[in-house]
Amino acid sequence: MKITKLAKGISLKRPLERGNEEQLQVVREVLDSVRANGDIAVRTYTEKWDGFVPGNLRVTQAEIEAGAKALDAQLYADLKEAADNIRLYHEQQKRTGYRLDLANGSWLGQRITALDAVGLYVPGGTAAYPSSVLMNVVPAQVAGVERIVITSPANRDGKLPDGVLAAAHILGVQEVYKIGGAQAIAALAYGTETIAAVDKITGPGNIFVALAKREVFGEVAIDMIAGPSEIAVLADETAYADEVAADLLSQAEHDRMACAILVTTSEKLAEQVAAEVEKQLSTLPREELARASIDNFGAIYVAETMSDAVEAINTLAPEHLEILTKNAEAVAEQVRHAGGIFIGRYSSEPVGDYFAGTNHVLPTNSTARFASGLNVDDFIKKSSVVYYSEKTWAENAPKIARLARMEGLEGHARAVESRGWEKE
Amino acid sequence: MKITKLAKGISLKRPLERGNEEQLQVVREVLDSVRANGDIAVRTYTEKWDGFVPGNLRVTQAEIEAGAKALDAQLYADLKEAADNIRLYHEQQKRTGYRLDLANGSWLGQRITALDAVGLYVPGGTAAYPSSVLMNVVPAQVAGVERIVITSPANRDGKLPDGVLAAAHILGVQEVYKIGGAQAIAALAYGTETIAAVDKITGPGNIFVALAKREVFGEVAIDMIAGPSEIAVLADETAYADEVAADLLSQAEHDRMACAILVTTSEKLAEQVAAEVEKQLSTLPREELARASIDNFGAIYVAETMSDAVEAINTLAPEHLEILTKNAEAVAEQVRHAGGIFIGRYSSEPVGDYFAGTNHVLPTNSTARFASGLNVDDFIKKSSVVYYSEKTWAENAPKIARLARMEGLEGHARAVESRGWEKE
Repeated sequence: MKITKLAKGISLKRPLERGNEEQLQVVREVLDSVRANGDIAVRTYTEKWDGFVPGNLRVTQAEIEAGAKALDAQLYADLKEAADNIRLYHEQQKRTGYRLDLANGSWLGQRITALDAVGLYVPGGTAAYPSSVLMNVVPAQVAGVERIVITSPANRDGKLPDGVLAAAHILGVQEVYKIGGAQAIAALAYGTETIAAVDKITGPGNIFVALAKREVFGEVAIDMIAGPSEIAVLADETAYADEVAADLLSQAEHDRMACAILVTTSEKLAEQVAAEVEKQLSTLPREELARASIDNFGAIYVAETMSDAVEAINTLAPEHLEILTKNAEAVAEQVRHAGGIFIGRYSSEPVGDYFAGTNHVLPTNSTARFASGLNVDDFIKKSSVVYYSEKTWAENAPKIARLARMEGLEGHARAVESRGWEKE
Repeated sequence: MKITKLAKGISLKRPLERGNEEQLQVVREVLDSVRANGDIAVRTYTEKWDGFVPGNLRVTQAEIEAGAKALDAQLYADLKEAADNIRLYHEQQKRTGYRLDLANGSWLGQRITALDAVGLYVPGGTAAYPSSVLMNVVPAQVAGVERIVITSPANRDGKLPDGVLAAAHILGVQEVYKIGGAQAIAALAYGTETIAAVDKITGPGNIFVALAKREVFGEVAIDMIAGPSEIAVLADETAYADEVAADLLSQAEHDRMACAILVTTSEKLAEQVAAEVEKQLSTLPREELARASIDNFGAIYVAETMSDAVEAINTLAPEHLEILTKNAEAVAEQVRHAGGIFIGRYSSEPVGDYFAGTNHVLPTNSTARFASGLNVDDFIKKSSVVYYSEKTWAENAPKIARLARMEGLEGHARAVESRGWEKE
């Protein structure tokens, strides 16, 4: 990894993946076709791209149970414990509305209600992501969403991975479909004969899934369009180089576009980490991906002071931030922008990816400046409530009418003034 | 207005305004040009479209004060009182994070921080919208946003409307620019020599503004893309027809695409309201707009039971909902989807547009199924925090490593396992 002196203008931004015109055309065709033709279109695309001939698109309860049983019992228990931890953390995010009593019997309120139905896309391909199921479904359940749908592309033998089915089993999710790609997003957004439409779609996917989510955004809600993963480690001379290197590589192995950055006040650590990364890389199963990520987007910055280093972190606004310094908790207080913060050497970032209870769906590409990780708020909405008594109305109607007329909206003024006449 | 028997499948959805290819090309050119050339591009487009030659793009403090003084003193006081009401309502939405203590000294946390900088677009043209300034700025201030920027197109004499300046004055907003259109969105998103970039852009605008916001979405945050306004009135035989008609017209006058719907259990009221709408329409200054809206998107539905009527409202998920029935508060409890709910005849919808304290930026086009009105949460973000002690790590590292390996992420497993060796 290249070691540079910290300077202004550092950035971890990579260009947003927007796909090309051809991909967008494919996605639009799929969306239109599923909207018009429903299940038939979903089946056609599934056969074409996932290579299996769908019998039932919906996974049966027996299949879910079989998957759960087929998974190694220890792994099932680990997943279950992770789910419990995630639930405990997210339960702190439950909210109630409020009522604000005004004079003369009037009041204002905020009502909080859960979304009716949400859909989670779980990517398929060579790997299975049971942890994604936990991270997306649990906050929705805590929010009180009644209908939770999972869709994921099946293997060529028409099956979903045991880990994904086991996660659904642990959480009690019963509506699971073997559908992937843009056709899954279309089915969730528009509904088909088999799948009723949902109100929000979450979960990562390939470029076709991402483009489809962007296209249906507005008709349904979506979570963020996730970019490649990133980690920034903020460390001083007390950190262990092998641990820093291992953590940098844990994100680098995700994707060749992933980004791993060390900001340190210790030149010695910088050099040690660079050497350690090289050493550890050569034994990593996903060496090729990790090396591409490190070569293209990896960087080590040496800062003169800890306060410069912290400012660099705030400029980066990383998805994941580890703080491996003296007084790490106090340093963390100075960080304004980061998706997830991991304090101290025993809080290696994968602790949060899988198990601790915090969410692993976090804002990438410096969007931690304005965005948050997935949380219970993503599955609720708020309605405002106004109750004005006659007395409050009488006191304020002239003011409201004046304000409306200032904006040229006579109809608004008249509506407010229409009250209170004797009409019987 | 047409009176119909309530049936399944009613909808207030209108096609999303996505602009045409030509408009999108214009917007992309403006965005690219401002990104590349900064202020010069902003000035060029301002001269071209707003028809004034900009001296200073930034409004001086003296101009803000002059605008505030020029506004009618009574109106200034009304605006000030509205601002206070809005602040009081939104202050209930302030949140703190939490800390969840685990065994063995470990803990998880959620930290809440305000966005650093937000930009509010205020549309110009023939009307001025001081109420928009209040509704967008106050929640940002309550959230603790330090830098709040307003941009709005100037008149041909290079001035902003007094009402807008007065609202800025009341709220203490000092950074105001005379820039409109897509060039304003570009300046806010990318920054120029004069205007530093912001993290989030809110506020409505014409099709060019809406398209520009959609294009920069992801690089900065945006609020919703607002659609035309809508109102649904849920009424029984206790409602007054003239009041219902006035309230329907108050939304219809906004826009020829606006939508005004009455759902009632009373056939008599339905007929009276239809007649009243016709009568009141003919005296409305914005008759033409309101008539187009009523003719194209207005509807009266007669329901057999109140529970059918409520279900219809939940299907519509309207931006604004008035409840003019017996036991209106109890009926409101059964509503799951509505942006703003107005209970009883003295809570005419414009009460909330201008004055009561709730926000008037509300989800349109049935998006109240999943979206909320503008609120303090729109101006904060949440970071998760993990602190694991050595003991907690030791207990859980094997589980975390197993879960990582199940997903094929060996580097994640090794990162967690790298801890705890004796290294000195």
